[in-house]
Amino acid sequence: MKPVDYRSSGVDIQEGDKAIALMKARVRKTFTKDVLSDLGHFGGLFRADFSHMKEPVLVASTDGVGTKLKVASMMGNYGTVGSDLVNHCVNDILVQGAVPLFFMDYIACGRLEALIAADIVSGLAAACSENGCVLLGGETAEMPGFYNEGDYDVAGTIVGLVEKEMIIDGSEIRPGMIVIGLPSNGLHTNGYSLARKVIFETAGLSPSDTHPLLGTGTVGEVLLSVHRSYLRYLEPLLREKLVKGMAHITGGGIPGNLSRVLPEGCGAHIRQLWSVPGIFELIRELGHVDISEMRKAFNMGAGMLLVVDENDKGRVMELLRMSGVEPFIAGEIICGDGITFED
Amino acid sequence: MKPVDYRSSGVDIQEGDKAIALMKARVRKTFTKDVLSDLGHFGGLFRADFSHMKEPVLVASTDGVGTKLKVASMMGNYGTVGSDLVNHCVNDILVQGAVPLFFMDYIACGRLEALIAADIVSGLAAACSENGCVLLGGETAEMPGFYNEGDYDVAGTIVGLVEKEMIIDGSEIRPGMIVIGLPSNGLHTNGYSLARKVIFETAGLSPSDTHPLLGTGTVGEVLLSVHRSYLRYLEPLLREKLVKGMAHITGGGIPGNLSRVLPEGCGAHIRQLWSVPGIFELIRELGHVDISEMRKAFNMGAGMLLVVDENDKGRVMELLRMSGVEPFIAGEIICGDGITFED
Repeated sequence: MKPVDYRSSGVDIQEGDKAIALMKARVRKTFTKDVLSDLGHFGGLFRADFSHMKEPVLVASTDGVGTKLKVASMMGNYGTVGSDLVNHCVNDILVQGAVPLFFMDYIACGRLEALIAADIVSGLAAACSENGCVLLGGETAEMPGFYNEGDYDVAGTIVGLVEKEMIIDGSEIRPGMIVIGLPSNGLHTNGYSLARKVIFETAGLSPSDTHPLLGTGTVGEVLLSVHRSYLRYLEPLLREKLVKGMAHITGGGIPGNLSRVLPEGCGAHIRQLWSVPGIFELIRELGHVDISEMRKAFNMGAGMLLVVDENDKGRVMELLRMSGVEPFIAGEIICGDGITFED
Repeated sequence: MKPVDYRSSGVDIQEGDKAIALMKARVRKTFTKDVLSDLGHFGGLFRADFSHMKEPVLVASTDGVGTKLKVASMMGNYGTVGSDLVNHCVNDILVQGAVPLFFMDYIACGRLEALIAADIVSGLAAACSENGCVLLGGETAEMPGFYNEGDYDVAGTIVGLVEKEMIIDGSEIRPGMIVIGLPSNGLHTNGYSLARKVIFETAGLSPSDTHPLLGTGTVGEVLLSVHRSYLRYLEPLLREKLVKGMAHITGGGIPGNLSRVLPEGCGAHIRQLWSVPGIFELIRELGHVDISEMRKAFNMGAGMLLVVDENDKGRVMELLRMSGVEPFIAGEIICGDGITFED
C-alpha cells in the first residue's frame, strides 16, 4: 500500500513557501518604524505609543471581497482585489473618524498557486501603502475540496485609531442638515452576486464584451474597477470637525447604510440627481431589476455619504474639491425616520 | 421576462438579519467596559488606555480553522470550531508573551443558515470569554457558488497586548536549556487534509465509527476535540519571566515551529517519550504514514513547547502543575541547527 503524505492530501507546503517568498518584499514595503516584527513570526508586533492622545480608541473592522472574486477569477486578474478589500475596510473605520494603523489578511483557496497569492498580496500592499497602513501579517490557507479551481477567498481585518472625542457616531445629526455624496468608482465590493447573475447568466455577456453604456472599458474591466478609498478626501474635514455623520455605501445600499447613522427622529430624503455610472444602468436594463431592488444592492454611484450642517456646506464642498474629488448634494435630513427617494 | 432580484441571485438578506439577531446576545456577553461600540456599527470600538504600561505593543495574528471545518460539516456540529479558532489565535500571540484584547471573526458560506452561523459564533464567544478576550466584531459573508452546501469557512484575527520588554522572541535561548512540552488535545487545528484522506478515504471509516486506539469516543468526536488554549497555564510563567522561547505546534509540526524561535547556532534534540494520543497512532497505521511526515503534519501530542533555563526547570514544572496541566520534558537545546528526534 502506498503511504499517504501531506502533498497527496492536497496541501503543498513548498508552494506555500514559494508564495511567502514572493510576498515578503511587497509586504515589507508597507512597514514603518512602528513595526517591531519581521515576517514569519507567529504574530505581528505594532508599537502602541498613543501617548500624544487624550483617550485613544482602537477601531477594528473585518470584511471580505465577496463574489467580486469570481470576476477576478473569470478574468484571471487577481492584482486589484486586494486593493478593493483594503480600501473597503479603510472606509468602514473612516466613517467613525478613524485612520488606519494596520491590516491583517486572510487568503484561502483549494490549491495554492504562489503567483496568484502573490498577486493578491501585491494589491493588498499597494492599497495599504496608499492609505498609510501597515500590512502587518496574514494567513494563506490551502483547503483542498473547499474551493473550486481558481477560486480564492480574500478577507481581512483593519485596526485603526481615533481620539475618543473625535468619534463620529451620527448623534449630532439634526433635521435640516445636508447630505453630501462622493462618487463611487462603480460597484465597489457589493452586489456582485446580482450583477454576475444579470450580466453573465441572464444576458449571456462575457467579460471581454463591450457595451455603449460602459464607454471604452469591457464588462470585466468595469466590474473589476477598484473600490475607492475616501481617506485622503475626508481627512481635512475630520480635522476641522465638519462632519456630523458618515455612511460607507456597501451591501444594503443607501437605505441600509445611511439609516445606521441616523439618530432617533431623523430620516433622510435623497434626491438622486447625481450621475449614475453606466454599469448600474446596464444591470437595471438587462435584468429588468426594480429600482428599489437596485438601491438595496448597489451604491448607485454614491460610495460615501456625509451629513454636514447647512452652514458648513460651502466650506465642506470647497475642502472636498481641493482634495481632488467632485462632491454632490445628495439630499437632506428630515424629521421622521427611514430613507425616501426622489428621482 | 422575470425581473432579477437579490434573493434569486442567492443572497438572502433576511436570513442574514436573523443570524445577526441570534448572535447578538452571545457576542455582547464577551463585552467589557473597554468596548465603546454596540453591534451594528461599521467598526468595533475598543478603548486603548495603555497608560499603565511603559512601552505597549500590539500583537496581531490571523488564522483559519482549515479543513477541520469539513469534519464539522460531516458531523453537523458547528458549535466548537469557533473555539478552535479563538484558542489557536490566543496561543499564536501567547508565544510572544501577549495576552488577548479582542477578536474579529470572518464566516463565509454559499448559503447562509442562521442557526449554523449562530452556532459558530457561540463557539467563538465561549472561547473569547474563557480567554478574557472581547469578540469585538466580524463579518458573515454569503457567497453563492463559492462554497458547497453545508461548508462554512471560519477565520479570524486576534489583537493582543504585551509590554515591549516582556516580548519573548527566543533570542535568549542557549544550548543546554530544557524543552518542556504541554499536552495537546488531539489534532488541534492542523493536518486535517491528511487526516481526512487517511481516515475517511483510504480506510473508509465514517465519523460515527469507533476504534480501540481512540478509547470511548467516535472518530468524528475525537477529530472535533477542541484546540486547547494554553493562556491560563502560561500566564504565571510569563509574569515571572521564566520562559525563554515558546512554540505553538501548528502546521509544520515541531520541526516547522520550534525552529522559528531558535536563534542562530541553536538546534533542538527532541526525545519523544511523552504519550502520543491514539488518534495519531490511528492515522499512522491506517495511512502507513512515514513518521517524519507525521511529525511535519501533526503536533503528535505536544501542543505547546517552552524553552526554559535548566535552573528554572523545577519551578516551571511546579507552576505548570499548579495551573492544572501535566507538563513533560520534551528535549533540550543543543549547539548546531535544526531539530533532531530520538524515539
